[in-house]
Amino acid sequence: MPRTVDRPERLSAISDAVVTIATEHGFAAVTIRTVAERIGASTSLVTHYVGHRDDILRSAVRRVVEARCREADRVVGGTAGPDALRALVEWAVLASDDDHGIHRFWLALVVGSAGEPALREELDVFNSWWDTRLRQALAAAEIADTDQAADLINVVVDGLIIGAFDNGHPWPPHRRQCILTATWSALGVAPREERP
Amino acid sequence: MPRTVDRPERLSAISDAVVTIATEHGFAAVTIRTVAERIGASTSLVTHYVGHRDDILRSAVRRVVEARCREADRVVGGTAGPDALRALVEWAVLASDDDHGIHRFWLALVVGSAGEPALREELDVFNSWWDTRLRQALAAAEIADTDQAADLINVVVDGLIIGAFDNGHPWPPHRRQCILTATWSALGVAPREERP
Repeated sequence: MPRTVDRPERLSAISDAVVTIATEHGFAAVTIRTVAERIGASTSLVTHYVGHRDDILRSAVRRVVEARCREADRVVGGTAGPDALRALVEWAVLASDDDHGIHRFWLALVVGSAGEPALREELDVFNSWWDTRLRQALAAAEIADTDQAADLINVVVDGLIIGAFDNGHPWPPHRRQCILTATWSALGVAPREERP
Repeated sequence: MPRTVDRPERLSAISDAVVTIATEHGFAAVTIRTVAERIGASTSLVTHYVGHRDDILRSAVRRVVEARCREADRVVGGTAGPDALRALVEWAVLASDDDHGIHRFWLALVVGSAGEPALREELDVFNSWWDTRLRQALAAAEIADTDQAADLINVVVDGLIIGAFDNGHPWPPHRRQCILTATWSALGVAPREERP
């Protein structure tokens, strides 16, 4: 089989390995050697496919970020007015238990970005996307002071995510929902109607 | 000089090294070897003074936590009513730029506690102290629903701390103050009077 055929598969396996290692042990633990060990390949095979360590970090982060952005756009798509704002924020903090993994990866990215410019740049790309979407949603919800509202929502979203790790386990959904209800109230956004 | 004389000094140097390494690179980077390298001693000297790795993690974390608790008690001491609540929360999120280091250490502790039971236990001790102080302050401020209020404050405090790392730099104090003002408003606590 010619080498080009399995290239996407190899790249995908390498990115998966980066994400798993970073999620479990932080980005400092991601090296060409640990990635190679994880996929059962030689270090020269890894560098053949992806080049330097920064390249494998960047492409792995970008893949996760792009998938998250697509997911958010799918969840928010079709909503309007304050529903769009609620859908975006709820997607960020309320969704399934699977999110504990993606939140842990995000936390590893935040921590790693302090010492690794490549990670800082990728996180900035994600933050810039988030900021654009959030401001669109705040405009759709007709919130006047978008700067202050964006700050408050960012603090609440970050706080709800980190709270799961501070406590050692995710908060039950109703406690997270109470925080969002207080946030909507502070912003003058009507809470979503209760469903049984 | 007999060995007992410089024991506190050695222990102090070892704890300082643990804190520095954990703050910069995370707790995974803290090993008997990296600590010994940092203080310019042999690994056997380090183990002679502190025993196993878990012991040096625990005593280093406990020293930082105890200093933080004393500082909070000093800041909150002498205040009453809603002032006690504001003083406690402002101490946690508003204080000097030096706090970026202590916040980064706390973040390393939160991240590290996911995989290291010794860190989890020490973080639980700190969280339990914080929870007690927070509930005392909420009672002093005559807030009725202490569970919900504590959740909201915890989310805001955690979110403000992590926000500095998510953005790559601490927020300016007035932006943090705006978030606290919104929080006091949500809780029905009068904001502190503006000072010029």
